Amino acid sequence: MGRGRVLAVDLGGTNLRAALISESGELTHRRSVPTQSSAGPEAVASRIVALLDGVAAAAGLGDEIPAGVAVPGPVDPRSGVVFFTPNLPGWRDFRLREALSSQTDRAISFGNDGNCAALGEARFGVGAGARDLVYLALGTGVGGGIISGGRLIEGTGGLGGEVGHVVVALDGPSCHCGSTGCLEAFVGGWAITRDARLLATTADGETIRRAAAAGEITPSVVASVAEAGDPAATAILERAGRALGAAIGAFVNLFNPELVIIGGGVATLGEALLAPARQALPRHAFPAQRQAMRLVTSQLSDDTALYGAAALAFATTAV
Amino acid sequence: MGRGRVLAVDLGGTNLRAALISESGELTHRRSVPTQSSAGPEAVASRIVALLDGVAAAAGLGDEIPAGVAVPGPVDPRSGVVFFTPNLPGWRDFRLREALSSQTDRAISFGNDGNCAALGEARFGVGAGARDLVYLALGTGVGGGIISGGRLIEGTGGLGGEVGHVVVALDGPSCHCGSTGCLEAFVGGWAITRDARLLATTADGETIRRAAAAGEITPSVVASVAEAGDPAATAILERAGRALGAAIGAFVNLFNPELVIIGGGVATLGEALLAPARQALPRHAFPAQRQAMRLVTSQLSDDTALYGAAALAFATTAV
Repeated sequence: MGRGRVLAVDLGGTNLRAALISESGELTHRRSVPTQSSAGPEAVASRIVALLDGVAAAAGLGDEIPAGVAVPGPVDPRSGVVFFTPNLPGWRDFRLREALSSQTDRAISFGNDGNCAALGEARFGVGAGARDLVYLALGTGVGGGIISGGRLIEGTGGLGGEVGHVVVALDGPSCHCGSTGCLEAFVGGWAITRDARLLATTADGETIRRAAAAGEITPSVVASVAEAGDPAATAILERAGRALGAAIGAFVNLFNPELVIIGGGVATLGEALLAPARQALPRHAFPAQRQAMRLVTSQLSDDTALYGAAALAFATTAV
Repeated sequence: MGRGRVLAVDLGGTNLRAALISESGELTHRRSVPTQSSAGPEAVASRIVALLDGVAAAAGLGDEIPAGVAVPGPVDPRSGVVFFTPNLPGWRDFRLREALSSQTDRAISFGNDGNCAALGEARFGVGAGARDLVYLALGTGVGGGIISGGRLIEGTGGLGGEVGHVVVALDGPSCHCGSTGCLEAFVGGWAITRDARLLATTADGETIRRAAAAGEITPSVVASVAEAGDPAATAILERAGRALGAAIGAFVNLFNPELVIIGGGVATLGEALLAPARQALPRHAFPAQRQAMRLVTSQLSDDTALYGAAALAFATTAV
């Protein structure tokens, strides 16, 4: 029993989600419980162990089934230390491996959620079979991961693959990371919202102001206003898309990938963002590398992190 | 005989250089002949074969000794097709492997000179023992290569590692590659020269003009004028260095390397360029990744390509 299956956990700021996933990508025994992150990292670790045990038991399995955990922040996959996570209070240099292994004999692998997602796309998603791909998670922040020659780019401390924090404009806007001109400072959800809020204070912001009067300004609001023909909202997404295209061009020249996969909530803005990215790309990528590459959107949607955690477990444990 | 030794060729626009290099990095039987590139790629291929045979024979060896060739342009290491080389006329989609294998039974590996240099640094140079490094060749253009997890980043067509052609400034200066704002457009020798020539036409360019009256404007002239205290020349190198630091920051976040190695002629400008790069770096790299990394200069100097070609041959043939 249990051969060719692993447990997967998506550690989110609000919910802990878990499932059993087979080698062929069949996802069963899905469960979700509140993370209750305010109770602190040790308590969350206990909830992870209980959730894993619960999903395994529901499938008639025990702690012989390995698990992968997708962590929403930088983590050393070898030591299992989580350096910090923006969405979980108190997680700073937290020894997640130790906290778990004191409570369970289950083999558990860890990975940054962006890196996990890249693995998941390469194993279960639109990148299945690709040996060279770049995955960009466009959410509130911008994360992702890189597969080169069939292997995840990890770096010496397991902290590589920070695709959202590469400079695209030396004197560009400030980034949440403390830098300036990062890709995230153009195309992250917070950056698009920042631009739209600024627009709403200007004479050109009449349409955005009206749309926002019905609720908060979000990237979706910007996209719907742009789709309705508002030139100022369109300009915001074009600027973000252009930065995205330039960064993809850099990745294409660096990694010569078969695929660049766009996922995350902001990716659902669709062509309003992707069209200017596609337009900027040829300017910033060499022709041969560009022609070898397809720019596609993720199909794993909300389960990207779960599939990624499973791919990590398959990649790092003998199942 | 010949165990643990390979032949290496540095295919340059002016000279073909070759040597025998041992596993431990002992370089012997060095030879150099004019490339005579005006005779066309087939003729150059014949000269490569003759040079390799000559070096082998001088060492009492035959065509059982494999060779590596560092090519100054994009090449598919698998097919052996050279897409183009800026410095060799007529090399466009040239089937170098076929041209050589029709004349010799010797096993010959090919690589872009930047990628070779990264391999050479990781095997024989300042990066010996490192599994994660970025090598930047700052010459007239900017090339280089990336080693991640002990392996060269090649990409699907062997064209990865173009570290000089990543955007650092969306609306930056035009690049020779047709893009705008590439790292090379700031820190390539031609870019520094471009900035200095422009300076020489202005009121602030008096010192550069006088220095240039004694000869051509070169990056070295800019550096010596800057070293003598000229603020305008200093500003040119500071701008280039700042772009370099930002790009290194991006590489640090992407690759989490142990080492970033700076080589090439422009690197000899030293701290005039590297000090502003070091200063910009903390702004553009995450602290954990930055602290894991050392920024160093290459020690292989003029023989970087030869050692790289040898490292390539060691990596791709059973010696």
